[in-house]
Amino acid sequence: MDQVVYNLYAAKLRDYFEARHVVYSILPLPTTEENKSMELVMKILDEVHKFSLDRRGEPIIAIGGGVCLDIVGLAASLYRRRTPYIRVPTTLLSYVDASVGAKTGVNFASCKNKLGSYVPPVATFLDRSFFQTISRRQISNGLAEMLKMALMKHGELFELLETHGPFLLDTKFQSEGSGKYGGKHGKAAVTSSRMAIKSMLEELAPNLWEDELNRLVDFGHLISPELEMEVLPTLLHGEAVNIDMSYMVYVSRERGLLTEDDKLRIIGCMEGLELPVWHPDFTMEMVNRSFQNRLKHSGGLARMPLPISLGRADIFNDTTDEVLCKAFKKWCDELGTSSKTLI
Amino acid sequence: MDQVVYNLYAAKLRDYFEARHVVYSILPLPTTEENKSMELVMKILDEVHKFSLDRRGEPIIAIGGGVCLDIVGLAASLYRRRTPYIRVPTTLLSYVDASVGAKTGVNFASCKNKLGSYVPPVATFLDRSFFQTISRRQISNGLAEMLKMALMKHGELFELLETHGPFLLDTKFQSEGSGKYGGKHGKAAVTSSRMAIKSMLEELAPNLWEDELNRLVDFGHLISPELEMEVLPTLLHGEAVNIDMSYMVYVSRERGLLTEDDKLRIIGCMEGLELPVWHPDFTMEMVNRSFQNRLKHSGGLARMPLPISLGRADIFNDTTDEVLCKAFKKWCDELGTSSKTLI
Repeated sequence: MDQVVYNLYAAKLRDYFEARHVVYSILPLPTTEENKSMELVMKILDEVHKFSLDRRGEPIIAIGGGVCLDIVGLAASLYRRRTPYIRVPTTLLSYVDASVGAKTGVNFASCKNKLGSYVPPVATFLDRSFFQTISRRQISNGLAEMLKMALMKHGELFELLETHGPFLLDTKFQSEGSGKYGGKHGKAAVTSSRMAIKSMLEELAPNLWEDELNRLVDFGHLISPELEMEVLPTLLHGEAVNIDMSYMVYVSRERGLLTEDDKLRIIGCMEGLELPVWHPDFTMEMVNRSFQNRLKHSGGLARMPLPISLGRADIFNDTTDEVLCKAFKKWCDELGTSSKTLI
Repeated sequence: MDQVVYNLYAAKLRDYFEARHVVYSILPLPTTEENKSMELVMKILDEVHKFSLDRRGEPIIAIGGGVCLDIVGLAASLYRRRTPYIRVPTTLLSYVDASVGAKTGVNFASCKNKLGSYVPPVATFLDRSFFQTISRRQISNGLAEMLKMALMKHGELFELLETHGPFLLDTKFQSEGSGKYGGKHGKAAVTSSRMAIKSMLEELAPNLWEDELNRLVDFGHLISPELEMEVLPTLLHGEAVNIDMSYMVYVSRERGLLTEDDKLRIIGCMEGLELPVWHPDFTMEMVNRSFQNRLKHSGGLARMPLPISLGRADIFNDTTDEVLCKAFKKWCDELGTSSKTLI
């Protein structure tokens, strides 16, 4: 259990387990991006081993944000070669992102998620009430991954985020569309989070082991891993992803795939979600380096997902250096100054 | 590559790679049972990361005995969540055992293979010529796992081992059944090693992730892990397995599953293979402790494979403490003194 979540929910959790006569042990851990390492996995394994659980019948439960789910998932997948585990995401980001799919992982040699496994949990428990205790910035953080799915394959979700984004930030997704949260915003919280998860599932389920390297869900994840690790802990994951997506929108525009109007609507939506759209450390040199790495690790192809309209995208392998440079220049010119204040 | 194998074959290997213009890097490691830990896995991962290989297209190659194959397999399965790897077993034991199946692993908290994954290699290269440089004792070690498969499901293999065992030890499986190794021993080396691998494959293929916990291949592996770890490095893996099997033959006899004649033939065959059939540290207390652990980790059932004739076996859950004790006493009475000299 993440240390912060533990401080807020340990008493409730103990009540829950004790009322059901569950034999349990809680290990609170500082599951931050900086601590996302094999050492923390070994710490969890020591505790799991001491607890002495049944190989196939008793689960390890991960309660926290994405880092917590990834680390505990890796520990569970290693212990006796596979021990069942359950994901309980407590942040919006992990609710729509890390909670879906089979991936587990830790950082290694300053590279994000370089070590890990593909072992799905036996269950994921989704409970939006946890979001009451996370910050507004953390809600924005999660909205970035929702926007990613919207841009890649869900025009309706994009419109929901564009229209109800600020309301979702205000209410922290607690609305069920009734009472004081009802009215014109309707069931935006329920509908948008379900759409995001459903479209993630559609993408991941047929490609659970990533045999297919052309992945729409990689949008926003080409340059952001390097940015995120370099400025750690300045940017949250979703923020780094959004900066990457913002640049890619300019690449798409430069290639003539997106209209100027669509580009402006996307950037406007990002700003409505209170996400950074530019960063001074996101340099052309970083773009080039990330592309070289990408080519090396993806069988020589860029496999770059780019939006081609609001809610539709495709994978491209033929973006020229010239386009990347021109897009970068325009991106800096148009967003460079204004967005500095957002970070 | 195991350090010992490196000392013997590095020059040949370099010639091989260089003749084929392969870009490669060799990391020699002391892959012993005592070093079979996550630390060694991390050392491999450092080297793999430095080498910077393609995620799906370039393999890691493990060249060595079972410990080497298990450790490198785990490193490969963790790097970028799965990097292709190739197994090149250099001992008879790893040739017939660790080279088959999907398991990777390391020891943890003094428990054998407590951490690991189920990730099969993309290929296994089988080359018996490596056995020329291993000791006679290492050949015995491998014969133990072959005998296991023989006792569980292959009467013909048992008869081959019983008849040609000493010859296989003498020739280190180099015979193709022609020339000076021909004659009455025929193709015993080829035939017996193929039979052992084929019967392993038959058992493992339908149960690659061990969803089914009733496994004939667990024969000899109920008490031996504890024995092997306790007396480390006194006993080789196959030797510990054989001592476990020897005791289980007495359990089977005590239950009336095996005839006295079959029991004597099996023990005689073990001795012909120059394997220890008894050990002073294999105590009744260790038997009880291993059984308790087994019950805990196998959903409350003993799932004990026992031979019911030469080459046929079944899984039993109802062996009483009384039978275990009586069998132990008889086992010590009959084999206790004589076999001490073998260890």
